[in-house]
Amino acid sequence: MLKRVDIRYLKKPEEVNLKDPVMIEGLPGIGHVGKLVADHLVKVLDVVKVVEIYSHHFPPQVIVEKDGLIRMPKNEVYAYKSDGTSPDLLILVGDYQSISNEGHFELANAYLKIAKDFGVKRIYTLGGYGVGRLVEHPYVIGAVNSESLIEPLKKAGVKFEDGEPAGGIIGAAGLIIGLAMLEGIEAACLMGTTSGYMVDPKSAKAVLEVLMKLLNLKVSIEDLEERAKEMEKLIAQIKEIQEAQAMQWRSEEDLGYFR
Amino acid sequence: MLKRVDIRYLKKPEEVNLKDPVMIEGLPGIGHVGKLVADHLVKVLDVVKVVEIYSHHFPPQVIVEKDGLIRMPKNEVYAYKSDGTSPDLLILVGDYQSISNEGHFELANAYLKIAKDFGVKRIYTLGGYGVGRLVEHPYVIGAVNSESLIEPLKKAGVKFEDGEPAGGIIGAAGLIIGLAMLEGIEAACLMGTTSGYMVDPKSAKAVLEVLMKLLNLKVSIEDLEERAKEMEKLIAQIKEIQEAQAMQWRSEEDLGYFR
Amino acid sequence: MLKRVDIRYLKKPEEVNLKDPVMIEGLPGIGHVGKLVADHLVKVLDVVKVVEIYSHHFPPQVIVEKDGLIRMPKNEVYAYKSDGTSPDLLILVGDYQSISNEGHFELANAYLKIAKDFGVKRIYTLGGYGVGRLVEHPYVIGAVNSESLIEPLKKAGVKFEDGEPAGGIIGAAGLIIGLAMLEGIEAACLMGTTSGYMVDPKSAKAVLEVLMKLLNLKVSIEDLEERAKEMEKLIAQIKEIQEAQAMQWRSEEDLGYFR
Amino acid sequence: MLKRVDIRYLKKPEEVNLKDPVMIEGLPGIGHVGKLVADHLVKVLDVVKVVEIYSHHFPPQVIVEKDGLIRMPKNEVYAYKSDGTSPDLLILVGDYQSISNEGHFELANAYLKIAKDFGVKRIYTLGGYGVGRLVEHPYVIGAVNSESLIEPLKKAGVKFEDGEPAGGIIGAAGLIIGLAMLEGIEAACLMGTTSGYMVDPKSAKAVLEVLMKLLNLKVSIEDLEERAKEMEKLIAQIKEIQEAQAMQWRSEEDLGYFR
Repeated sequence: MLKRVDIRYLKKPEEVNLKDPVMIEGLPGIGHVGKLVADHLVKVLDVVKVVEIYSHHFPPQVIVEKDGLIRMPKNEVYAYKSDGTSPDLLILVGDYQSISNEGHFELANAYLKIAKDFGVKRIYTLGGYGVGRLVEHPYVIGAVNSESLIEPLKKAGVKFEDGEPAGGIIGAAGLIIGLAMLEGIEAACLMGTTSGYMVDPKSAKAVLEVLMKLLNLKVSIEDLEERAKEMEKLIAQIKEIQEAQAMQWRSEEDLGYFR
Repeated sequence: MLKRVDIRYLKKPEEVNLKDPVMIEGLPGIGHVGKLVADHLVKVLDVVKVVEIYSHHFPPQVIVEKDGLIRMPKNEVYAYKSDGTSPDLLILVGDYQSISNEGHFELANAYLKIAKDFGVKRIYTLGGYGVGRLVEHPYVIGAVNSESLIEPLKKAGVKFEDGEPAGGIIGAAGLIIGLAMLEGIEAACLMGTTSGYMVDPKSAKAVLEVLMKLLNLKVSIEDLEERAKEMEKLIAQIKEIQEAQAMQWRSEEDLGYFR
Repeated sequence: MLKRVDIRYLKKPEEVNLKDPVMIEGLPGIGHVGKLVADHLVKVLDVVKVVEIYSHHFPPQVIVEKDGLIRMPKNEVYAYKSDGTSPDLLILVGDYQSISNEGHFELANAYLKIAKDFGVKRIYTLGGYGVGRLVEHPYVIGAVNSESLIEPLKKAGVKFEDGEPAGGIIGAAGLIIGLAMLEGIEAACLMGTTSGYMVDPKSAKAVLEVLMKLLNLKVSIEDLEERAKEMEKLIAQIKEIQEAQAMQWRSEEDLGYFR
Repeated sequence: MLKRVDIRYLKKPEEVNLKDPVMIEGLPGIGHVGKLVADHLVKVLDVVKVVEIYSHHFPPQVIVEKDGLIRMPKNEVYAYKSDGTSPDLLILVGDYQSISNEGHFELANAYLKIAKDFGVKRIYTLGGYGVGRLVEHPYVIGAVNSESLIEPLKKAGVKFEDGEPAGGIIGAAGLIIGLAMLEGIEAACLMGTTSGYMVDPKSAKAVLEVLMKLLNLKVSIEDLEERAKEMEKLIAQIKEIQEAQAMQWRSEEDLGYFR
């Protein structure tokens, strides 16, 4: 039985034994900036998967992969044990965000519970900040849940603009740092400026560079552009098919009332 | 009182005493391919109804049948005890799928619970794969939740196309094999290619033929086309009336705010 | 605290002591046919209010009446103790039906619970059957949850048309007789043919006449047309204002995101 | 973990020790009339914050304030201890109303619980009454949950118009006085006439003047127009950005299905 929000630990926190880990969130969102960065970290770092999250708030479907193998939509948390120069990490990535308003809150509750179970001391959520036009030289805007974070972030190159983004920060990237505030966990959202119209590896690169400074971490950024290209191609392909799908689904809905 | 998802056993699993049954799902969907096949099996095999499922996730209405007799919308599970040459079957058919996103998950949970209660060892979900144009020679595309199923399915004539359907498999046909995966039950989705625009007995025939091979089962396919014609006629008729209904319902909604 | 479905007994069933009562449902719906008839019965019969039903599934607002006095939207059940020539009655009337799909099921559950608490032996739900054009001579179409009801209803002038209404019976009028079926309570839906475009006292009169025959009850029908005229006027007035309201509400929604 | 409706007491009622307090509600709504008045009272009176309310029914996002500091959307209750000439007050203000229908009921339940915990004896909810055209000389329309309130309100300049607003009172301003009625707490809604198209300080002034008479309270109204101007500017700015945001969010939704 799948619960509304179904957190499944593959490893217990005490088994993984992270020391004051920093949580990184990069779920799908504007320009897929956050997802690009977090997926990249999972790929290039020596990580181990520790949690899978399933939910009734994800789209009611399965994903078909190579050879026709399917899997349930899910989010995942990976643990990274550092060599001591950078902090240990807990990286949250995944297929979807909630497709309902209330689901966003229920999922954010789950992410915070996981953070607390692993003893997380700081959280960085990653995202894009859409400006509605092409961005030649992306930079990173920050939002924080504690004043003490402003100076360190500025030193790492993060810009702060009064009351920006004015529309608030929607979804997991926002709610996680909001709930973290209520739980007394320092957290910031790092947003790469981007057009908002396409997958943006340049913006992701800007965010990754800031993040590396903040974490005192060095990873290759070679693949990032490669990954973005693939993502872009996949999205184009999927969109095309989704339009067909939507058409069929509509016709299915028409038929849905048949008996 | 009707529960959100209300599973009513007409016969207990131990009464029916199926041996390692295979579950077949054929609910309304694209081209009604799955429904055509599963309804057909229920009609031509010597089955007994074992479960009825009612739900708040079905449309809030009753169905009117011959002579003005009504009944609640429901899904049903039928048991087929084979003569030993083919496996015992548990066939899931019904009026509707969920009309809400979350409802799809709650209903799929129920279907899996029933499968487990009856000791199901394998599941085939049936559906259509809409391609957006007329299909002269339909064939069957497969998606599986276990690599071990690929070869046997290929032998029965099922095609596998990398990452197809790219938009995922929506609704019960997808979630059932997804949840089965989490429960360790082998399951596959068999999708007949179809336009997606109309009830498609030809596509259903293609799926039924594959299914018969997989189950080592022989049933007449005479009625299939007959049934599709009736379904098509009924759908046309119902659509016409539903448009009128929708119009009235809208006017009812307008009035709904009256006091 | 108001529960999702909040049933408040003003009198206990044993206080009212109805003998095998017949339940009549007439909530807002197509042509307001059912509401007209049930409201009329409450007015002309010597009834006592026994239950009030509040719900989160009604619109989130209060109703303003004469002199600026407000009240919560609600449904009500009235008891009628007959002189013995006709059966005792339990009459369900009210302001609204559910505004969500799931709410329809939760409210229908509540109505059935009340019916059972009062020992109801038969239920008539009332409604309109919209035909999409003006109806000069309305008649009454029936739908039943038990074959045994067909003959008595035919004798009272009810028509039965195979599989009509083909789109099913939506909302309380349908779900009540559907749930009653599962509870073993005989129930029928009586639908007066109507255009579906306006409040229809003529159709209501046709339904009331059939109902009087079925109940061996005689009530004045004078007020019915009068009441329909008032209702029509009120609806026109309210619609006008609702359009303004909707406009404001939209603008409120725009503002809703302001902080 | 944030509950669906999460009431957090900063001070216990017995600590604050209000004497028969009057509750004032002024949440976002038509013309922001109620919000303007209640926010103003919180600013000019010597108040202390006693409750914070978070909810899954608010938009799933955080608000970004000066210097990039974020906070969760919330409603707040402030206590005002008077010098004895006017009653003690409990003032409900906040960022949002519910964005779902059911949420309105759940939040209104919460507000009533708080009122009862603090021993509230009377409630005034504040709002705008949109008339769809510019209003030169706004006045205040009243709606009450008890006849005994009509005369005192009339004396304070409140108008009562039969059955107005005909569309009912939507949201917190309506449900609070409706639920108060069921709890036996006297309550009235004071609505300043306004166009419904913009933030309206003139209408707010009219409401504030009536409220001061009712409470025998004197506060400066200087800032009110100032505050309205700021609000108007902020709204314009936010709307502009929200349109961009909506655009991005849509594109995010498109991407949301990417994996």
